[in-house]
Amino acid sequence: MALVVMKFGGSSVADADKMKLVASRVIAKKNAGNKVVVVVSAPGDMTDKLLEMADKITLSPLAREMDVLLATGEMISISLLAMAIDAMGEKVVSLSGYQAGILADINYTKARVKKVNPNKINSFLSENNIVIVAGFQALNSKCDITTLGRGGSDLTAVVLAVGLKAGSCEIYSDVDGVYTTDPRLIKDAKKLEYISYDEMLEMAGSGAQVLQSRSVEVAKKFGLEIHTRSTFSKNCGTIITSEERIRRKKMEELLVSGITFDKNQAKFTIIDLPDTPGIAAKIFSSLAKVAINVDMIIQSAAVNKKSNISFTVSREETKKTQIELDKIVSEFKDSQVACDEHVAKISVVGIGVKSNVGVAGKMFEIFHKKEINIKMISTSEIKISCIVDEMDMVKAVEELHKEFGLSKKK
Amino acid sequence: MALVVMKFGGSSVADADKMKLVASRVIAKKNAGNKVVVVVSAPGDMTDKLLEMADKITLSPLAREMDVLLATGEMISISLLAMAIDAMGEKVVSLSGYQAGILADINYTKARVKKVNPNKINSFLSENNIVIVAGFQALNSKCDITTLGRGGSDLTAVVLAVGLKAGSCEIYSDVDGVYTTDPRLIKDAKKLEYISYDEMLEMAGSGAQVLQSRSVEVAKKFGLEIHTRSTFSKNCGTIITSEERIRRKKMEELLVSGITFDKNQAKFTIIDLPDTPGIAAKIFSSLAKVAINVDMIIQSAAVNKKSNISFTVSREETKKTQIELDKIVSEFKDSQVACDEHVAKISVVGIGVKSNVGVAGKMFEIFHKKEINIKMISTSEIKISCIVDEMDMVKAVEELHKEFGLSKKK
Repeated sequence: MALVVMKFGGSSVADADKMKLVASRVIAKKNAGNKVVVVVSAPGDMTDKLLEMADKITLSPLAREMDVLLATGEMISISLLAMAIDAMGEKVVSLSGYQAGILADINYTKARVKKVNPNKINSFLSENNIVIVAGFQALNSKCDITTLGRGGSDLTAVVLAVGLKAGSCEIYSDVDGVYTTDPRLIKDAKKLEYISYDEMLEMAGSGAQVLQSRSVEVAKKFGLEIHTRSTFSKNCGTIITSEERIRRKKMEELLVSGITFDKNQAKFTIIDLPDTPGIAAKIFSSLAKVAINVDMIIQSAAVNKKSNISFTVSREETKKTQIELDKIVSEFKDSQVACDEHVAKISVVGIGVKSNVGVAGKMFEIFHKKEINIKMISTSEIKISCIVDEMDMVKAVEELHKEFGLSKKK
Repeated sequence: MALVVMKFGGSSVADADKMKLVASRVIAKKNAGNKVVVVVSAPGDMTDKLLEMADKITLSPLAREMDVLLATGEMISISLLAMAIDAMGEKVVSLSGYQAGILADINYTKARVKKVNPNKINSFLSENNIVIVAGFQALNSKCDITTLGRGGSDLTAVVLAVGLKAGSCEIYSDVDGVYTTDPRLIKDAKKLEYISYDEMLEMAGSGAQVLQSRSVEVAKKFGLEIHTRSTFSKNCGTIITSEERIRRKKMEELLVSGITFDKNQAKFTIIDLPDTPGIAAKIFSSLAKVAINVDMIIQSAAVNKKSNISFTVSREETKKTQIELDKIVSEFKDSQVACDEHVAKISVVGIGVKSNVGVAGKMFEIFHKKEINIKMISTSEIKISCIVDEMDMVKAVEELHKEFGLSKKK
């Protein structure tokens, strides 16, 4: 009998009717001849409500106590879902993360899973129960409740699927898979049948919030296929799997899987920096100290012992960054800081990027043809990102989506 | 260093401001040189909200899952209170009922505490922590979460005080102690300085909801004094202790500690029942089968082989009781059922009742003088209860309160 891990996100258990729908999907899966372990998130906006409650008490809450507080949301979900399944006549039992044998390290609010002890779940499964496990939470070596960070329920599902040697891991949410680009912006965006772990990671980093990145990393490490799909439809979603399996499954290889974009960007350039060792380190360690997260960084080659450094930050960090840079730059004669708040990042993601040298060239060609000015370029194994003027963003995404053959019509 | 257990009810932790007030009271207690263990209930109407959520899923929820659901309320309280105490600069740690070593039997939703393992709490106390424990919840031998029934947080406080050999147990709520009668009805009701366990039990049974009855029983068994007082005032409340200690402390003995009343009563009388063995058993076991809780029962002496039985039930059970009785009585020739929905129960409670034969006589004399008709009488060790017309209730309570010397003015 195959073992399936099904994970349902907060929007799938937001009210009683949705909870009952989830219960019927779970029971259908069992009736199809599977052992079923279900992982659930906190209902709807419960986690935000709990955070608000804490905010009213203190703005610097104890991390240990924050975990106790946040873990309650998933406890509400597991008990209600178990009641719903029982009311439909199936044997069911709910387990907290700690009862389920999910053991984590000592970091509160962002604990890392160290081990899964599957005995208790296996014992309940062998008694013909559907087992419901609270996502997002674990037990540490002090027997404290810890949580796994935002999106941690995805990780719970993945580590359970690995630990229980499940045949499949299905992640249900209110979106029906991973798209070639955001369908809210581009109408003929297409649902992908497959995507590789690395592509998925690049897509998530570029703002496509389908799956928590750490859970994708763990799935990759253990070769676990994830099927991400919609709670509210019977259609297949997108399978996240290894490059090899994708290559084997596809006759014709897609160069590019998706186009991502992010408007929440501001670009800084420091002009005429002295070209001496340690300058970059000084700038970026100063920014790190005040918790400014820097994204793309480009340093130009030195001319006349002077060089320029450009980088991007989140737009809400603009002011803070400006203040910090003014301090640093005041130490260097002739250096100046320029800021451009009206930029967007556009990325082409695909396992074809590394094997096919033409992808970057094609991207730049498309931009050139449409008179889109590229302000910065950065590349990784399977991604090419460009910073452009935010006015050009939609046009750029549309053109790339069409020209790389991602549209439905094709 | 003395150990104090402080318990705060739901209305004391209903919002952030109240939570902070509780935090400051707890810290003051510690600064006065005590080790402090705090027990908290779920905030405000949280438990009712959770029950509503379950109601929307199913009307017959699994008891095990109900416990998982209900236990979340107290988890929210302990974490928020711990944050508040930490924000005020004191070392603090929160523990669920199961982490705190409160072990219970296998009955879900109304588990009985079997044992308290104080090691974890003691270890945190020895590291100078204020320890906050979630009330109402425990761990059973299957490592499941269970709850102790409504009002179970009182019981948590009492069993912890006993298990930790605490010097005192303080139960805080929004009322400032036990009164001679309900101060909302009788303006010059007086707060009692002391009350015995047995009196407290009779008061609670008569509708004075200050403390959960089981917690009073356990306190009595182990000779633990309970100080019930207000969260929102520094005044002393009422000490619940043994008769012996009260007698030792008081020069002049009070005959009566309080007058309780309950309007939520309906009286049934079955007239002309055949006087044969087993009739009463038949009637009351039939009522028990349909979960009708019978309060006072009186059977008249038989005359001409016929006798009458009267009893009271909660007023909301009137219809159900009528239907059930009609069925039973149809089997007996000549028997009839009469119902009076407009009655109230008035009780005089006091350890003086058993030692002083005059209390009952005085009560009846007062009723007679005020022309209050007594419809039923029932007595226990320390309580005399009468059923009267509900129209006479207020007058009866006023007169008894005055005549037994309970008013403030005296």
